[in-house]
Amino acid sequence: MTYCVGVLLNDGLVLAADSRTSAGVDYISTFRKLTVFEAPGDRFLVLMAAGNLATSQAVVTMVSERLEEGTEETSLFKAPTMFGAARVVGNALREVIATDGPSVRSENADPTASFLLGGQINSRSPRLFQIYNAGNFIEATPETPFLQIGETKYGKPILDRVIRFDMSLERAAKAALISFDSTMRSNISVGPPIDLVVYRRDIYRAEHRIEVAEGDRYFDGLRRRYGEGLARLFDRLPDPPLDTM
Amino acid sequence: MTYCVGVLLNDGLVLAADSRTSAGVDYISTFRKLTVFEAPGDRFLVLMAAGNLATSQAVVTMVSERLEEGTEETSLFKAPTMFGAARVVGNALREVIATDGPSVRSENADPTASFLLGGQINSRSPRLFQIYNAGNFIEATPETPFLQIGETKYGKPILDRVIRFDMSLERAAKAALISFDSTMRSNISVGPPIDLVVYRRDIYRAEHRIEVAEGDRYFDGLRRRYGEGLARLFDRLPDPPLDTM
Repeated sequence: MTYCVGVLLNDGLVLAADSRTSAGVDYISTFRKLTVFEAPGDRFLVLMAAGNLATSQAVVTMVSERLEEGTEETSLFKAPTMFGAARVVGNALREVIATDGPSVRSENADPTASFLLGGQINSRSPRLFQIYNAGNFIEATPETPFLQIGETKYGKPILDRVIRFDMSLERAAKAALISFDSTMRSNISVGPPIDLVVYRRDIYRAEHRIEVAEGDRYFDGLRRRYGEGLARLFDRLPDPPLDTM
Repeated sequence: MTYCVGVLLNDGLVLAADSRTSAGVDYISTFRKLTVFEAPGDRFLVLMAAGNLATSQAVVTMVSERLEEGTEETSLFKAPTMFGAARVVGNALREVIATDGPSVRSENADPTASFLLGGQINSRSPRLFQIYNAGNFIEATPETPFLQIGETKYGKPILDRVIRFDMSLERAAKAALISFDSTMRSNISVGPPIDLVVYRRDIYRAEHRIEVAEGDRYFDGLRRRYGEGLARLFDRLPDPPLDTM
């Protein structure tokens, strides 16, 4: 299983993906689900994938191969806008599904995949998209500033409560890591290391690209303190007055 | 959408269900998803349903009609054990699916449903079961004391953190209500009133049966205080030291 989250902020973007891939209980491996495309001074894009691993790897390979030779319609380095870049990914996904989908489905397997694409092109504002298996996509907005793919539900409540478009990149990274903690506790097939990219607008490179591994001092402390804090909060809340409700 | 949760405790059972049923965005109604079957001094059972409303109502109607005339195999009032009672529900569900399933599926609708059944028969310990659409079922244990059906994921992290078999009924009710709060925040189609049943072992009747409605003073206060407490906890946790990670 996979969990990826992207947060659109006034100051930039925070993007995070776990790296555990499972194909049955006795076969759990680590693959990168987060790919960075950088053209210094011009654009910075991060692509994260969930779903069928063959499909998502094929899409990432296709868009990677077309960076230089491709056109505005097929190259992430030539697309004039982030909207165009999302279309590049959506079209590549449609190609892979058209080619591989029928034979994968004939084996009763699921060929579908989905993506998050965040980044900035030229001096336009950073943008964040979620690309569906059909190749269409939605965009994050200041009112709905985060998007998730994969095992999304366990980690959504904390994001609903704390994510704001105008929060700092550091705070958003903290929220994303707590969201991963909640997800990892409830679904053992989502696991570290977590690939974390923090992008500050107008710098066209990752300000921070961190692999948060098992045993990371900050993350371990965050998990422990958040768990202890929640337990204390729960203790302090009054029990329901069942006799008078 | 539906959310139901059952908690098995040393002291008894806590069972809660929302009551909002949706069939498309412009048609959201309130139906009871929680049914109590009481035979004073002998047994107490609570049945909660999620999934296709026609299927789950048919099952509840069937088992209700067979309480008196039914046999050990078909009556919740004659089943000798809670295991037998779970089988009664599972068999009724299989009957409904066999009858209605094909025509519902032919309209591209989903006929499936699932149930939680908690209760106590005679002087045996209280037990809690989750009955799948196939009619088979699993049972809660002291190590895994809670079960959920419906929109389960948003409300699971808080239960994972605080539910213990040896906690009090009141604390478990508090945890269940917080779990509903998280679910309702992330999925607007799960909504109040919440039907809450608190069962203390060996009394063979609901110790408390409460409808927690919109505007309930305790629940509103719990939601507010939990939200404020979480926000404070989040604020106090240190931001990640991105430069040195």
